[in-house]
Amino acid sequence: MSNLLEQITQPNDIKKIPEEQLPQLAIEIRKLILATTSKNGGHLASSLGTVELTMALHRCMDFPEDKLIWDVGHQSYTHKILTGRKDRFPTLRTYGGISGFPKRAESPCDAFDTGHSSTSVSVAAGMAKARQLRGTKERVVAVIGDGSLSGGLAYEGLNNIGRFKTNLIIVLNDNEMSISRNVGSMANYLGRVRMSSNYIDFKGNLEQVLNRSAFGERLAKGLKKTKDSIRQMIIPGEFFTEMGLTYFGPIDGHDIALMERAFHAAEKISGPVLLHVVTKKGKGYRYAEAEPSRFHGIDPFRLATGEQTNGKKKETFTDCFGKAVAELGREHSDVVAITAAMTGGTGLSRFQSEFPDRFFDVGIAEEHAVTFAAGLAASGLRPVVAVYSTFLQRAYDQIVHDVALGNLPVTFAIDRAGIVGNDGETHQGIFDLAYLSHIPNLTVMAPSNGEELAAMLRFAHEAPGPVAIRYPRGNVGCERLGECGTQELAQGKAEVLHREREIALMFVGPYYGLALQVRELLRENGRSASIINARFAAPFDRDCVRRLAEEHSLLVTIEEGVGAGGFGERLAAFVMEERLPMRVLPVALPDRFLAQAEQQQLREMCGLTKEAIFAKIKRELEA
Amino acid sequence: MSNLLEQITQPNDIKKIPEEQLPQLAIEIRKLILATTSKNGGHLASSLGTVELTMALHRCMDFPEDKLIWDVGHQSYTHKILTGRKDRFPTLRTYGGISGFPKRAESPCDAFDTGHSSTSVSVAAGMAKARQLRGTKERVVAVIGDGSLSGGLAYEGLNNIGRFKTNLIIVLNDNEMSISRNVGSMANYLGRVRMSSNYIDFKGNLEQVLNRSAFGERLAKGLKKTKDSIRQMIIPGEFFTEMGLTYFGPIDGHDIALMERAFHAAEKISGPVLLHVVTKKGKGYRYAEAEPSRFHGIDPFRLATGEQTNGKKKETFTDCFGKAVAELGREHSDVVAITAAMTGGTGLSRFQSEFPDRFFDVGIAEEHAVTFAAGLAASGLRPVVAVYSTFLQRAYDQIVHDVALGNLPVTFAIDRAGIVGNDGETHQGIFDLAYLSHIPNLTVMAPSNGEELAAMLRFAHEAPGPVAIRYPRGNVGCERLGECGTQELAQGKAEVLHREREIALMFVGPYYGLALQVRELLRENGRSASIINARFAAPFDRDCVRRLAEEHSLLVTIEEGVGAGGFGERLAAFVMEERLPMRVLPVALPDRFLAQAEQQQLREMCGLTKEAIFAKIKRELEA
Repeated sequence: MSNLLEQITQPNDIKKIPEEQLPQLAIEIRKLILATTSKNGGHLASSLGTVELTMALHRCMDFPEDKLIWDVGHQSYTHKILTGRKDRFPTLRTYGGISGFPKRAESPCDAFDTGHSSTSVSVAAGMAKARQLRGTKERVVAVIGDGSLSGGLAYEGLNNIGRFKTNLIIVLNDNEMSISRNVGSMANYLGRVRMSSNYIDFKGNLEQVLNRSAFGERLAKGLKKTKDSIRQMIIPGEFFTEMGLTYFGPIDGHDIALMERAFHAAEKISGPVLLHVVTKKGKGYRYAEAEPSRFHGIDPFRLATGEQTNGKKKETFTDCFGKAVAELGREHSDVVAITAAMTGGTGLSRFQSEFPDRFFDVGIAEEHAVTFAAGLAASGLRPVVAVYSTFLQRAYDQIVHDVALGNLPVTFAIDRAGIVGNDGETHQGIFDLAYLSHIPNLTVMAPSNGEELAAMLRFAHEAPGPVAIRYPRGNVGCERLGECGTQELAQGKAEVLHREREIALMFVGPYYGLALQVRELLRENGRSASIINARFAAPFDRDCVRRLAEEHSLLVTIEEGVGAGGFGERLAAFVMEERLPMRVLPVALPDRFLAQAEQQQLREMCGLTKEAIFAKIKRELEA
Repeated sequence: MSNLLEQITQPNDIKKIPEEQLPQLAIEIRKLILATTSKNGGHLASSLGTVELTMALHRCMDFPEDKLIWDVGHQSYTHKILTGRKDRFPTLRTYGGISGFPKRAESPCDAFDTGHSSTSVSVAAGMAKARQLRGTKERVVAVIGDGSLSGGLAYEGLNNIGRFKTNLIIVLNDNEMSISRNVGSMANYLGRVRMSSNYIDFKGNLEQVLNRSAFGERLAKGLKKTKDSIRQMIIPGEFFTEMGLTYFGPIDGHDIALMERAFHAAEKISGPVLLHVVTKKGKGYRYAEAEPSRFHGIDPFRLATGEQTNGKKKETFTDCFGKAVAELGREHSDVVAITAAMTGGTGLSRFQSEFPDRFFDVGIAEEHAVTFAAGLAASGLRPVVAVYSTFLQRAYDQIVHDVALGNLPVTFAIDRAGIVGNDGETHQGIFDLAYLSHIPNLTVMAPSNGEELAAMLRFAHEAPGPVAIRYPRGNVGCERLGECGTQELAQGKAEVLHREREIALMFVGPYYGLALQVRELLRENGRSASIINARFAAPFDRDCVRRLAEEHSLLVTIEEGVGAGGFGERLAAFVMEERLPMRVLPVALPDRFLAQAEQQQLREMCGLTKEAIFAKIKRELEA
């Protein structure tokens, strides 16, 4: 079967494959991607869409000398398969295996680590400028999706490369999608470009030009000199031309030979070039073609049917948020919801369908999402911004400067907080407690279960200022225990669930079950422990800590975030400041980036298990 | 003299001034602005440039009902004068006085607090959308400079308003400048627009259209229907047209009557409109017209000569950095420097003139500055990114995701860290220690004087990963005391300057003088104190703290940043974790936004004085 792929064992091997066999190789690559992602989950649709584009680039470029920057990076599976990682590819996204994103540590062919969107133009600009200064000769190519073009950083990059006098190719991988369907004027503009040009005609035109260009260099010069006449032929890219780039396209992103020729033509232009290719997300797998959003980032699924293997899933925090925000929207007409290309992922689909006028998907543009919300809040509405923890990092200044400074009542619904698992370093939501808790006026909360998330959303709606609610990826089911989250919420007040003496276990987020287990282990060892649901990370409950100090000698904090600047450290400093007769033992994540693994594996590695916490407490008590 | 201004006591009074007297009013406003800024310092050039624009807007809008968003906000002086703050205007930028930026708390006519760049389109979008949802009728107008257009957030905003079906006017105040001369493709594009159109001709054309439009509504419809023919007439704004905006301009931003008519025409267009006005920065004051960058944000100066009143200034940290980075550039060809429209402000002018090929002013685009640096570093260069502390907040995710994750050797030279003074809340650099210290792989340093800043820059050049060096606005002179900063730098190692017992004073930044004074007060009270220059905020010197605990019962930390998540809190948590027999007393800024005042006033208010620190230590010792 997989005869051709067998010949691909190291970088540049693809150049030896005869042109007529490339379609067969594409089929084999797709099979490997499908076989792997159906077992391991992953970013299927984007990677299926870029098989031919990647093959064409690999036939034109030399690895690892040349630098290829994948924007976001989740579309790099074919690149990995073609650069000596085919045999390890089945370990995709597993602990110790191949990453789902480019990683410099994994291969010299991965020029830059990506994961967040819209960075590639700036990175490539840096590499092209470094090449110019160092006098080296490598090619620099960035591949950026049309979805990533809605991010301001991509625009800042484009705005700056226009004056570059050095070669740099930006491949615009236009699949009409970010994660959801694309939005914004740029998307409309690209739509018009696609509509206004006829692939077949254009292809004919390009062939003409390229044939005439058998004369090589002369053509390149000719292309520049007759810029205007070429522009007439390749009219659509005026926007990019105004940005100082030479525009080629749009061309069929599944036609390898055409892309190779276009790439070689682009190489001969001096200065930055934008090569616009149109691809189909999910290409070659009918279920993914039909539902590219569902197959964007997907859990393991049955190849034959496209159905998810996990069967009926338990209720997640995302589900709870989705229901709760829709309910809030029904009760209060001032509630509006905003997301940045994550409607499904954040659970806002229901709100969107019930309140289309009050729902805003701003595209991949977290900064705008937050500042737009600030404008809405300043005019009397109650915006809820739903975004993943790791992506909200992009809007840190907008939270500080546009929301918190004006004490505007914006609610941040922060999904995927803490350990996210197999997406790895770039996606773990482990910094939010540290980067949010020091912002003045901002209340930072973490629900212990789904009901409490709903209650916190309600609480935030009545709050006088901004509120952030952070909750992890995963199920809420096992956390619906006992009375947790049932006491009424009050600003800055923790919930004491079990009142004993000696040791106090205070958790931030859905760790009641874990706290109960630790308590059980302590009890078996003759120790008694209170359990407190912190609820508020900032401002934390100072009175509660003071009271705890009256009857406990040790306060153990449990949080899923980096220790540095986190909840536990802040409580420790407070206890010292107040000279309270109680020690604080923070249980938190280590202060480093966390690689890919299952969520539970990572928790075990980081000591967020009953055994590890119990052992830590034991050491503390015996010290 | 000031007869006309006397008639302006509350919002909308300007509408009563006869048209022919407006030029005289403009003169009076300029006089007031000049008289005030020459005494108090301030953002002179931008405010002089927008006198007529503001007057025209105020004749067309109703305050406080209508919403006017000033991007950055430093150009809002005329707006303040026209909205009942004329008499208090001489208190500009002083403690308790009128802010140099729009403040909702100051006047209902200030629709939104600004200070950082490129936020206005998103804010206005939120306000326009809120108006639509709430069914109210107020106008929403954003005024954004061409410099702010290089910021990605402005693009994200423009990209999102294109599909708005509600009215929204974006006034593009095009003065060819950000703080320095503007850069990037957008700037070039606007340059072409200005070149390609003839004011006089355009003015004639607009008059024609407007005269024909005496028929009111009909014109508005006509304008939309004959969009194409209008576009021919007003060709230049194709870029904005592609973004979904109706474009008007460019028009003379000092012709009040013309702007009023253009504004009324723009109002009749449904959907978002971009009104492009061309102004002269510094207009009406010849020194500011000649040197708009110097008069951008200026200290008190002599009106007659334009010379700064302070006389010869002492050497600042900025000066030291400027010298040191140029020297580093001479020694190492791999050093490149990047700034975001702050060449002069960060002290990079010398580096720029010596190494123009290795210097990059990316415009107001902090995110790109950082990610571009990451690309340069990944290709073997040693970039130094020089930016103000408050603006680096905008690139938090780029530091985490593009630099620290890959452990890339980028040096961040963070100026204006800590209290900046009269610019107030939006500009204080008080969060950097908190938002940087928890980032893995990132070393965070603070020099105690100019020599140490130079040494740290050198140290960062040899470091294997990213290094942030933060230093305040102000002079270094008084900090060149004794042996401070002379011991060789070693990763994560503090410098012990005076070794005694009992109390340890550990400072982060140029607070050796302060520490000495505190020590003297302690000595007078029979207490002895060691003094330690922390040098590293992250990773801090754990061994040093352990050793201190052997001979000291109290560790006092001194830092100019918020306490929450700051240096002192982290040390307190560490001391508790290690069960060291020493208390930690953090001296830091309060966890809130800090309003405008002189730096020294703010330090006094925040307890960063010898007396306050001594008193705090005394309370601690007596507790």
